[in-house]
Amino acid sequence: MTQISELGEFGLIKHLTEAIEIHNSETVKGVGDDAAILEYGKQQTLVTTDLLLEGVHFDLTYVPLKHLGYKAVMVNLSDIYAMNGTPKQITVSLGISKKFSVEDIEQLYAGMIAACDAHGVDLVGGDTCSSLTGLTISITALGSVDKGKAVYRSGAKENDLICVSGDLGAAYMGLQILEREKAVFRNTKKAEDVQPDFAGREYILQRQLKPEARMDVIRHLAEKGIVPTSMMDISDGLSSELIHICKASGVGCRVFEDRLPIDYQTAATAEEFNIPLVTAAMNGGEDYELLFTVPLELHDLVEQVEDVHLIGHICKADQGMNLVTRQGQEFALKAQGFTAF
Amino acid sequence: MTQISELGEFGLIKHLTEAIEIHNSETVKGVGDDAAILEYGKQQTLVTTDLLLEGVHFDLTYVPLKHLGYKAVMVNLSDIYAMNGTPKQITVSLGISKKFSVEDIEQLYAGMIAACDAHGVDLVGGDTCSSLTGLTISITALGSVDKGKAVYRSGAKENDLICVSGDLGAAYMGLQILEREKAVFRNTKKAEDVQPDFAGREYILQRQLKPEARMDVIRHLAEKGIVPTSMMDISDGLSSELIHICKASGVGCRVFEDRLPIDYQTAATAEEFNIPLVTAAMNGGEDYELLFTVPLELHDLVEQVEDVHLIGHICKADQGMNLVTRQGQEFALKAQGFTAF
Repeated sequence: MTQISELGEFGLIKHLTEAIEIHNSETVKGVGDDAAILEYGKQQTLVTTDLLLEGVHFDLTYVPLKHLGYKAVMVNLSDIYAMNGTPKQITVSLGISKKFSVEDIEQLYAGMIAACDAHGVDLVGGDTCSSLTGLTISITALGSVDKGKAVYRSGAKENDLICVSGDLGAAYMGLQILEREKAVFRNTKKAEDVQPDFAGREYILQRQLKPEARMDVIRHLAEKGIVPTSMMDISDGLSSELIHICKASGVGCRVFEDRLPIDYQTAATAEEFNIPLVTAAMNGGEDYELLFTVPLELHDLVEQVEDVHLIGHICKADQGMNLVTRQGQEFALKAQGFTAF
Repeated sequence: MTQISELGEFGLIKHLTEAIEIHNSETVKGVGDDAAILEYGKQQTLVTTDLLLEGVHFDLTYVPLKHLGYKAVMVNLSDIYAMNGTPKQITVSLGISKKFSVEDIEQLYAGMIAACDAHGVDLVGGDTCSSLTGLTISITALGSVDKGKAVYRSGAKENDLICVSGDLGAAYMGLQILEREKAVFRNTKKAEDVQPDFAGREYILQRQLKPEARMDVIRHLAEKGIVPTSMMDISDGLSSELIHICKASGVGCRVFEDRLPIDYQTAATAEEFNIPLVTAAMNGGEDYELLFTVPLELHDLVEQVEDVHLIGHICKADQGMNLVTRQGQEFALKAQGFTAF
């Protein structure tokens, strides 16, 4: 184990960043000066940022640092895709307490760089400092989008189709599994006695620990010439994001329970934990899938896009924002920010 | 007092950001979507980020939240100026513990917005979440620079003149005063008995609490057509930054003690605290002045720039990085990162 104090602030930054390679011609100057230099020709630049705090956003009892690094980056790339953009660069700021070694931070960085490599993104700068308690991760992502192609939350129109990629509620159910194993671990005297029971739950655990930003969906939409009228990524849960889109667009919506895409592991785990499946799917959060709307006339075209599901439609604002159950009952959507104060 | 939980995450963000006005035509879309949208024509985009943690970078015992917000922004703008750029946008991420009220965070934001307004910068996005302990502030600044005009750390050449703006060591001595008053406060039983003794120390306190990024120096250099060969802002102390420039440029340097610009309040306070003045000036940190080099032939021109001082020159790498005292002795510069692990 190497104490971080052995390298010092500048030594640690040098150690962590010397292997970084530049992928994008838009990156003129990366790590190593007061600021990075980027250059976008006739495109627009997107910027988004996320702050992750130990004990609030992640629990190192069950989250490996490499996975954490990977996820911390993905969360930001997902926001760039949700604007219909292409992520190009990130900056990373870390607050590190004394409990972490250089090797720990290397693991975290390895995960971040793996995420960058998977999406062709350059790590171009950041800040590293000591913290009094726990780990703080702040990431800012930059990306590009052709002029006129950025998709806002505010463009949904009456009769638009509501689409969602992938499946819903899996990350939330993965979290339940991890929380249960943590409780088991705490009540066990000898650590060697613990045999985590993750069999048959690999998919939902991966959804929680190693989410993937949906670059593929953005590319497939572009290939078909589809520009959504509105789009967001699902970080706080489908309900919350639908409400954001409806409020920003001045419309209402109707989504159908029987249209919600749900994996069988999610369903099985929800039953095991006695959690209503519709709650997991609507309010679970951290799916990092894309939620978007397209004009009704694109119905046949959008149906051809791989792993995209039609779950409802946009209506007039005065018709409300509702979930229609299998039994035909309508329930008003409830906002439920994932990070509550 | 309003509890933050009364507004909730989204309510707080809306409350804090609804008064934000956009200053720059480069800001296409600010707060309120997954990412902000920026557009730079034929210019390059600069990006820099800083993480500030309570108990590490600031002490709310004596730092008013409004000042903290102002300084947190200035620190980042200073990095953009240090690239010879113009800051245009910032994003702000906050981790807020339960001890803060909505009014507290309003104060913090008021300081940030004042800093943005003073420099014509747009606040375009961010992230706000609860934290378990203390206040976490992460700011990313973006700026623009004409192609070919960005100034790196690595461009210093033999015989270049070393220049510094403003004066040195004042912020560090201001911190000593604040730390002393804090100790006095702690040892006093009744809070009403405390009469902080700040008379005649207003300048150095302001340097610590409300630093100003040197937009004026960058403008004056541009007006005279001076493009420095290398530049940094002084956050970790002159010694540390000089070493950065010399190492990045593959050169040595010689700076002269009797050329260091020092305010009389700094000098008086150093004497009072029995701190060697040269230590305060060389290693104090947080001055946020600009350190830069220019070719020797620009000597007469750079001397005309207001509030800029020539403090030494660049030499060959094998001649070392030295401070020449008033007595003519040479001492090797010592790096001393301000934020030690």
